[in-house]
Amino acid sequence: MLKLYSFGPAANSMKPLLTLYEKGTPFEGHRLNPAIFEHHQDWFKAINPRGQVPALVDGDKVITESTVICEYLEDEHPGEVKLRPADSYGRAQMRIWTKWVDEYFCWCVSTIGWHRYVGNMVKSLSDAEFEEKVKGIPVFEQQVKWRRAREGFPQDLLDEEMRKIAFSVKRLNDHLADNEWLAGGMFTLADICNFAIANGMNYSFPELVNEADAPHLVRWIAQINARPAVQKMFAEVPMEKLRPQD
Amino acid sequence: MLKLYSFGPAANSMKPLLTLYEKGTPFEGHRLNPAIFEHHQDWFKAINPRGQVPALVDGDKVITESTVICEYLEDEHPGEVKLRPADSYGRAQMRIWTKWVDEYFCWCVSTIGWHRYVGNMVKSLSDAEFEEKVKGIPVFEQQVKWRRAREGFPQDLLDEEMRKIAFSVKRLNDHLADNEWLAGGMFTLADICNFAIANGMNYSFPELVNEADAPHLVRWIAQINARPAVQKMFAEVPMEKLRPQD
Repeated sequence: MLKLYSFGPAANSMKPLLTLYEKGTPFEGHRLNPAIFEHHQDWFKAINPRGQVPALVDGDKVITESTVICEYLEDEHPGEVKLRPADSYGRAQMRIWTKWVDEYFCWCVSTIGWHRYVGNMVKSLSDAEFEEKVKGIPVFEQQVKWRRAREGFPQDLLDEEMRKIAFSVKRLNDHLADNEWLAGGMFTLADICNFAIANGMNYSFPELVNEADAPHLVRWIAQINARPAVQKMFAEVPMEKLRPQD
Repeated sequence: MLKLYSFGPAANSMKPLLTLYEKGTPFEGHRLNPAIFEHHQDWFKAINPRGQVPALVDGDKVITESTVICEYLEDEHPGEVKLRPADSYGRAQMRIWTKWVDEYFCWCVSTIGWHRYVGNMVKSLSDAEFEEKVKGIPVFEQQVKWRRAREGFPQDLLDEEMRKIAFSVKRLNDHLADNEWLAGGMFTLADICNFAIANGMNYSFPELVNEADAPHLVRWIAQINARPAVQKMFAEVPMEKLRPQD
């Protein structure tokens, strides 16, 4: 059976989780605990040397990178429920939207999330304890991000990320004004990958994502939350509870 | 017939160009002139509102984003020459490598290229002429990049990009030590997309890309340059001549 190593149903972890739930593909879920840096432990780095979730294990193969995993599931375990348009142009549009999440949308939202919540996970550690944790992180850029989360991100970086978030919200809202779904006239991996980042923004960024300013984005978020597969996923897979910044 | 709007055979423009040459797919090439900012002119923004090359026109459809175009060609015009592994795991590995180019490798090399060559294109303009050019650029981040290229990139950014380039060279070289090609045991879009960035690095970054320090990368670059399709592309599509930084 497929094994999925992930955190709870948010951000990159949600992408393959929701893909599996939408398809109704049976899998064995292994939820790692970010609070104890389980993804940087040796047992998990033996599965993904980059120390990052999600990772999918299919027999003797390991597939990493959330968006790549979603297309892999579509290629190798398509099942009855198709989440990729049948036509090449629709697929191209879908890939432009998933690529945009990975290159732009996820990063600005992620930095603010780290600023608000993730820094707390390491602020109570002593310098020595923190350095011990950082030593276990294989990706240099992730080490930098952990240090910044602990010390505090520079204000000009936070301002720039907020600008990008506002731009992203407008881009999604404008497109969804004329389209029920993001690409190919159907619910696809483009919706899943963008929803993985956008879900909850009506709570975390209410000044941007609200009925008055982004009605089409709000409608699309509600529409996806109402899907049976989404409800089943949230009911079955617990979400991490991170304490907001003091 | 397919129409491809691009610059010469380097960086993102090379990705679909070489894909078409490898497949032997007939197409009408339209080479834009970056020295006169042709990609920011209204006629081209009517084709791609982001003002970026490459863009592929297939009948009444426009496909943008270089990596997406390559997969589109494989989906819609596969022809005899397959550039994507037939198995799902091989495709996933190919996509991890093309994604890595778009998210990491192309950016560090690009910044140094802009620092060395592109800044010259705008240094002789008056402030008013330059602002007029910038106004025509639809993507905000590209406006910022043009300003930085003109004013000079901050040294700490240049240092960080050089660190990333050294890391990228090592990553490619290590992988190519045990693999003839990057993914799936065959020449794929992963090779095309990485070659589009890596080709010429033995001249532009000789301190990193040389026989002693990166023999496998040097071997792979030479091997791709020897392919008939690559030689045909370089013979038929002229490269821009940019003057190095004074």
